[in-house]
Amino acid sequence: MRVLGVDPGLTRCGVGVVEGVPGRPLTMLGVGVVRTPPDDELGDRLVAVERGIERWLDEHRPEFVAVERVFSQHNVRTVMGTAQASAVAMLCAARRGIPVALHTPSEVKAAVTGTGRADKAQVGAMVTRLLRLDAPPKPADAADALALAICHIWRAPAKNRLQQAVALHTTKGRTA
Amino acid sequence: MRVLGVDPGLTRCGVGVVEGVPGRPLTMLGVGVVRTPPDDELGDRLVAVERGIERWLDEHRPEFVAVERVFSQHNVRTVMGTAQASAVAMLCAARRGIPVALHTPSEVKAAVTGTGRADKAQVGAMVTRLLRLDAPPKPADAADALALAICHIWRAPAKNRLQQAVALHTTKGRTA
Repeated sequence: MRVLGVDPGLTRCGVGVVEGVPGRPLTMLGVGVVRTPPDDELGDRLVAVERGIERWLDEHRPEFVAVERVFSQHNVRTVMGTAQASAVAMLCAARRGIPVALHTPSEVKAAVTGTGRADKAQVGAMVTRLLRLDAPPKPADAADALALAICHIWRAPAKNRLQQAVALHTTKGRTA
Repeated sequence: MRVLGVDPGLTRCGVGVVEGVPGRPLTMLGVGVVRTPPDDELGDRLVAVERGIERWLDEHRPEFVAVERVFSQHNVRTVMGTAQASAVAMLCAARRGIPVALHTPSEVKAAVTGTGRADKAQVGAMVTRLLRLDAPPKPADAADALALAICHIWRAPAKNRLQQAVALHTTKGRTA
């Protein structure tokens, strides 16, 4: 399973590609950051994010895209930019028919560190260990994008089982 | 000046095209709503909004796109959807090199009714009068999109004068 993780943001949008299956060592295929100048017009920044995401999709052909679910508990301005960048990432994936999954920050932290309250350093350390890297990916947005991809690989089987159960239940309901 | 106004939303995205200049009667060229099914996947809904906006841009070739500026004072879930739909509208415009302007709800209300605290009915009534329509456009999202376009036509000269003043000042500063 090849997953592109996206930690959405307008100034720095973290992107990371991880390949693997649950229970086996994971492989990092790429990591980076799509940046847009804060002084540019908002529309132009969204176009730049789109181009950046498209390049990552073209290069790595992921089967899934995992995006951080945005909440609005923080600074209003930041949250709007994050929501807008995440919309562009979801749009790029959905246009190609690539399934998009959203994971909350605490789901991602819990998946890679065992606790939903882990800090950035802990997440960076675990991503480094799980992907057998020499050092934590910088900036933190890049490490978070890898953590999202890892979270998706590890959570997907449970989600798929749930979806299969729901589908089975629905089919039974219809045929009954 | 031909302006596409966009009242962003995932379930109902209002769109309206108005042509005119300040101080002259305005003309409505089109009004409608881009709808996406609430049960669809978020990525697919964003693709549907993109297709809808692209159709309006293709058909009416506006010179400006005016989008409602999103705040997060409301329901978190609604605001995220609104921010995401507005991102798609801005992206579509910016990709074509069409300038995008954001106007707050109170700027729009003040432009068409004279008060920033006007209700939906007042905005609908004034849009009907200013565009010489037989009845207020329904749903309210469609009327709001037209109000955004009118607001942009009427506010743009002031904004342009301000930008020219800033540009002049900056040039003077540089050459000094």
